[in-house]
Amino acid sequence: MGERWKVVIVGGGFGGLCAAQALKSKPVDVTLIDRRNYHLFQPLLYQVATGGLSPGEIAAPLRSVLSRQKNARVLLGDVVDIDPSGRSVLLADSVSFEYDSLIVAAGSQTSYFGHEAWQEWAPGLKSVEEATNIRHKILYAFEVAERISDPVQRRSWLTFAVVGAGPTGVELSGAIGEIARQTLQNDFRSIHPQEAQIILMDGAPRLLMSFPEDLAQKAERSLAKLGVQVKTGVMIKEIDKEGLAMETDNRIERLSARTVIWAGGVTVSAFGKTLAKRTNAGTDKSGRIKVNPDLTIPNYPDIYVIGDLALALNADANPLPGVAQVAMQQGTYAAKAIVRKVQDGRPLPPFEYFDKGGLAVIGRAAAVANIFGMHISGLTAWLVWAFVHLRYIVQFQSRLLVFIQWAIQDLTFNRGARLITQSAATDFNFNKEVSSHQRPDEAKNKEAAPSVDTRKTA
Amino acid sequence: MGERWKVVIVGGGFGGLCAAQALKSKPVDVTLIDRRNYHLFQPLLYQVATGGLSPGEIAAPLRSVLSRQKNARVLLGDVVDIDPSGRSVLLADSVSFEYDSLIVAAGSQTSYFGHEAWQEWAPGLKSVEEATNIRHKILYAFEVAERISDPVQRRSWLTFAVVGAGPTGVELSGAIGEIARQTLQNDFRSIHPQEAQIILMDGAPRLLMSFPEDLAQKAERSLAKLGVQVKTGVMIKEIDKEGLAMETDNRIERLSARTVIWAGGVTVSAFGKTLAKRTNAGTDKSGRIKVNPDLTIPNYPDIYVIGDLALALNADANPLPGVAQVAMQQGTYAAKAIVRKVQDGRPLPPFEYFDKGGLAVIGRAAAVANIFGMHISGLTAWLVWAFVHLRYIVQFQSRLLVFIQWAIQDLTFNRGARLITQSAATDFNFNKEVSSHQRPDEAKNKEAAPSVDTRKTA
Repeated sequence: MGERWKVVIVGGGFGGLCAAQALKSKPVDVTLIDRRNYHLFQPLLYQVATGGLSPGEIAAPLRSVLSRQKNARVLLGDVVDIDPSGRSVLLADSVSFEYDSLIVAAGSQTSYFGHEAWQEWAPGLKSVEEATNIRHKILYAFEVAERISDPVQRRSWLTFAVVGAGPTGVELSGAIGEIARQTLQNDFRSIHPQEAQIILMDGAPRLLMSFPEDLAQKAERSLAKLGVQVKTGVMIKEIDKEGLAMETDNRIERLSARTVIWAGGVTVSAFGKTLAKRTNAGTDKSGRIKVNPDLTIPNYPDIYVIGDLALALNADANPLPGVAQVAMQQGTYAAKAIVRKVQDGRPLPPFEYFDKGGLAVIGRAAAVANIFGMHISGLTAWLVWAFVHLRYIVQFQSRLLVFIQWAIQDLTFNRGARLITQSAATDFNFNKEVSSHQRPDEAKNKEAAPSVDTRKTA
Repeated sequence: MGERWKVVIVGGGFGGLCAAQALKSKPVDVTLIDRRNYHLFQPLLYQVATGGLSPGEIAAPLRSVLSRQKNARVLLGDVVDIDPSGRSVLLADSVSFEYDSLIVAAGSQTSYFGHEAWQEWAPGLKSVEEATNIRHKILYAFEVAERISDPVQRRSWLTFAVVGAGPTGVELSGAIGEIARQTLQNDFRSIHPQEAQIILMDGAPRLLMSFPEDLAQKAERSLAKLGVQVKTGVMIKEIDKEGLAMETDNRIERLSARTVIWAGGVTVSAFGKTLAKRTNAGTDKSGRIKVNPDLTIPNYPDIYVIGDLALALNADANPLPGVAQVAMQQGTYAAKAIVRKVQDGRPLPPFEYFDKGGLAVIGRAAAVANIFGMHISGLTAWLVWAFVHLRYIVQFQSRLLVFIQWAIQDLTFNRGARLITQSAATDFNFNKEVSSHQRPDEAKNKEAAPSVDTRKTA
């Protein structure tokens, strides 16, 4: 091993993993370092958040993905610092790794734009833990509503606000609409889940700003059929336990909603910030690092930055979006550039992004797609979506299982992974959830306690 | 609703759910209360603990299981007390529910026989959270071993001790053997996972005491093939971060093992203890409540106790085991007894358990079974096991998925649900894991840091 060119890759997301795989059988030694032991298929994370899939079904152990690639090793570790002149990265446990070439694919994380306190009430959707937390919140809200008799309180528990109307927000709110209208249809005795209010809001003038306008309109119509209201031009001023305050046309309004989900934006990872500092690299306001046309950092030809962390420009000088396609193409490019350097020293021509288009799914068998300039919607778009996503899922097993889950969901309207886990379910106590003014009477009055609305059972 | 006979069921495990289903279309109103929103297929929980299945695949939402049963409602709640003379149960949030008949199927939980401190180092296997915790510990141990160069430390991380050699312990240790020998075979570069030591220990003179001796011997041989050593006649004296102390033949010995799993015993749930106190019921040493031949508590003909919480006797006056079969038959019996009481007041003949036999699986396509007095082992027993378990899984979706997962695992030796989730992976820091005497040198010496054993990559 010792004498070969050492490539260190930070992050096992789409970009990092593609880079590692593109280095297979090349004359380099690859070390892939990630804080997680798995690659996560992020585009389907909203399905975990809404009980359609289990985390294990959209994750592939990095070791097993790379187990047959003899020149690659995987390390579980948290890269916290870099010494760009000494060419080494430092892990949280003070161990450092030297590199000849470094590929940084450290990704992004949820950003609250300075309102970190909102995180407690409005989880984002970037990790498995956040997704299961959202799943817990959504299912728990229906459970609480079933046990509450006060109509105002109940309404608040049955109101779901999704902040951010990009693809993630659209997909999430569509899935919540499906849960309320279809999955839980017959499951409750006191509430009608289909009366849930689902509100998708954004500061922009319309949803899906990265899509053509006609597709955004189609998406809005599909969402309306699932009971999702879209509110645009809305600025969020505050999020707390009881709901949120929003500003529209200089008027501030409160929305009482016990479930708020944040799909509002991302920022770069902590190591991304450190990297920019150590290399004096330029960044945009969300922290993305401005890279050369060959994806290296200015003055550091051995450090490639790819994926969500990179601010790369397309032919029109617009920044490339933070999507899997871009990360994957960049990973492959960085790998090729390194192989060239090792083999004959010739540089590659600058990175060019080949845009295959965008996709967003809106519930059962409905989606919008912008593929090679064609605008597609409805079932056709959904089939394209399913095909594209299945193709990218890394492992055979995941692919098969996810496909079967989809098929079953569409046949049965059921969602199998509806678990409320974690301590919140164990330490179950509605006192915490119901406003105090309502409790004392109920607690004392046995008859009133299981005060069930008998609309359905009478 | 109001005037009908009110049946409250505490617990949605095998017993409680069977009771609820047996009351379908009967002239009673059923309220099933559980702290969880799902029914858990406990016999496959060891598969979650060992990365073979995702939690969602062995859990079915209680609401969806009962959604078409119009006389049943499900409540998420924690029953903490009972007023047996006033015929009501109290929930943690001070809400109470009156009953005409009560079925208590509150189950059991892991017991450390007074050594509660061991819980921190040796998780049990009764809940989804415990299972994912064990999964995390097992996978994390291999990750740490891959990064440690000290052979003694590494050995300790690659030693897995399972305490308790009943069916759960046998299944768990067999599955760990499979992970080490097959699943992770090619995944590491510095360690050979198949060198892991797996030790199954028990105070009893042999494993699987509830099975005939010839089957226990066959199980031990199958385990040996997977690298599992069985130590019997061993008393655990201490469990801590570094391993455990055990006593054999009056000699105390330490075992250095960073992963210890507790399959050593169970006790009744907290509500079970309260119930015994309020009704002055007799209990055995693990807290099980002595019931009448009709499963009611002496002097409380309206309270049925079933499943792991009940101490019921078979025809030979031996206690019935705490297994799903017993709970299910008892649940059906209690439901029938209540219907009789409501309809014509006639009592049922005493409960009789129909024993179909016992099963334990030892890894891939091997098991032992004692069915209707026949002793079966190997592939035949595995097929019986697979059939029996699939039959009992509550939902169509779970059944199909579990079956496919099995088939794929057996074809590929792979395990798809190998996620290390929760904060332990995020706050990743090997400093905490490696003994302090080893750190300072390593931290300072960059060259020594990624000290990789190159046996395999050289």
